[in-house]
Amino acid sequence: MGELGEFGLIALVNQGRTHTPGVLLGPGDDAAVIAAPEGRFVVTTDMLVQDRHFRTDWSSPHDIGRKAIAQNAADVVAMGAVPSAFVVGLGCPSDTPVEFVRALADGMWAEAGRAGASIAGGDMVRSPILIISVTAFGDPRRAPIKLSGARPGDVVAVAGRLGFSAAGLAVLSSGGDAAEFADVVAAHRVPQPPYEAVLELPDAAEITALTDVSDGLLADLGHIAESSRVAIDLEAAALAVPELESVGNALGVDPLDWILAGGEDHAFAATFANSGDLPQGWVRIGRVRPGAGVTVDGILRSGPAGWESFA
Amino acid sequence: MGELGEFGLIALVNQGRTHTPGVLLGPGDDAAVIAAPEGRFVVTTDMLVQDRHFRTDWSSPHDIGRKAIAQNAADVVAMGAVPSAFVVGLGCPSDTPVEFVRALADGMWAEAGRAGASIAGGDMVRSPILIISVTAFGDPRRAPIKLSGARPGDVVAVAGRLGFSAAGLAVLSSGGDAAEFADVVAAHRVPQPPYEAVLELPDAAEITALTDVSDGLLADLGHIAESSRVAIDLEAAALAVPELESVGNALGVDPLDWILAGGEDHAFAATFANSGDLPQGWVRIGRVRPGAGVTVDGILRSGPAGWESFA
Repeated sequence: MGELGEFGLIALVNQGRTHTPGVLLGPGDDAAVIAAPEGRFVVTTDMLVQDRHFRTDWSSPHDIGRKAIAQNAADVVAMGAVPSAFVVGLGCPSDTPVEFVRALADGMWAEAGRAGASIAGGDMVRSPILIISVTAFGDPRRAPIKLSGARPGDVVAVAGRLGFSAAGLAVLSSGGDAAEFADVVAAHRVPQPPYEAVLELPDAAEITALTDVSDGLLADLGHIAESSRVAIDLEAAALAVPELESVGNALGVDPLDWILAGGEDHAFAATFANSGDLPQGWVRIGRVRPGAGVTVDGILRSGPAGWESFA
Repeated sequence: MGELGEFGLIALVNQGRTHTPGVLLGPGDDAAVIAAPEGRFVVTTDMLVQDRHFRTDWSSPHDIGRKAIAQNAADVVAMGAVPSAFVVGLGCPSDTPVEFVRALADGMWAEAGRAGASIAGGDMVRSPILIISVTAFGDPRRAPIKLSGARPGDVVAVAGRLGFSAAGLAVLSSGGDAAEFADVVAAHRVPQPPYEAVLELPDAAEITALTDVSDGLLADLGHIAESSRVAIDLEAAALAVPELESVGNALGVDPLDWILAGGEDHAFAATFANSGDLPQGWVRIGRVRPGAGVTVDGILRSGPAGWESFA
């Protein structure tokens, strides 16, 4: 890509793209302009570092692009907001093949489209390793759903998959048979946050707190418990994931470890005040109680709770 | 910083900060919430890579933090928008001293304050080298001032310093006397975009195109000329910078090279339709003509026009 230069590359990755209506002014000026019809916008940012957050020998550039966008879109949706746009900073070595960058951009646009938004701009720089920085925006069409709203008596529920990405990572890390366990390996390469489970919540759903499971279920519910000053008790039986049993047997791992501490699936975890039927796509996994901390069947679980940078 | 961990570090850099009113919800949830009273917002992003965009032996962490924010704030202001907030992604080695990160954050907050905004959130990850990704937001209180509005007959003007940062870089690169040429070295370490020259433009100022000088005057005016489909002719006499003569003499460089091709000062360059007095802070440097390209006293200048990544 040294031959194309920065401006040639920017033209290349933007070629033939169609922006969603929320992008009022796209790439090409000093800054982009994004619609914020509610008079405010939601913003989140993540940095992904080669060999720490992704490996080019485990994932295609298209998969890496999708994952980078998905994990940011999930954070926007986890506020109860509708994704409106993304901007992307990309650092890469000057000998990076142009095809790699194009496939990365294609993956980003594909996942942005799944989330209903497009990529409004970015920056490209030379760097000794691949670095992807994504910032995502959303329209908060309702009051932001924060971590702090859970109350004793609320039902704890989850939408989306738990433990799949961690199981896939375990297969890849152990040199296991990626073809035999293709489902979990694919889940590690590209998370599939169930955006619609949040975006199509009926108004009557009394959702009180919401987050996406990025660091691990215990860690992320821990953030809700701490912010809301409550305890959360999960029911192990409700967390069982039959699809993970054969992988667990093959690798000698209790799948519950992946389910409780594995991040990156970007499922959504929430608390609901109404004790009736849960909205479409949501499964009950526990109950909010007075107190502090997160327990499983009433017991504090030892061992790693999830991902922490620098840990 | 390995000892503090990600969440400890996030608490540290946010300790004791006061957010500006535009930050409706700051760090601590899945995403931040920023006010966009005009129903739209301006956004720009830049990635800074250690040893490419900054050197820790040439600049203090406080200076690096200020520069990272200043260059993004300048892009927001270059759209005619008022900075409202920033988010920051930071990648750094786990043996980075906590004091370094704190000073970097202090520098960012200092420059954000100069621009009238605060830092609404971010991400911290482990990385083999220092990487800083800044995304900046602004309120477009008037129609965005784009690159494409220049018309033949317009006056070309600049607000702020040209060539200082490039001269400072030349002193540092050549091992010259940083103390003797402290002004230009300081200008390289921390640019001082004259935000107020744009933010306090009177309504009567018929500004037609605007950019900040980040890549170099010729390169950035080239973007205006290309987008507006016009030619720009500069007057060499109007560009002379007496303060750069002694540095030029010491290093055997024609200061006009720094003035025309040196970026990073983040001056503002604009075109104005009215031929009367220029607004406060603006100096006339040339004229828009029919045609294409940027000339100096009517002559196309050979040699490097400015910074391009991967070049």
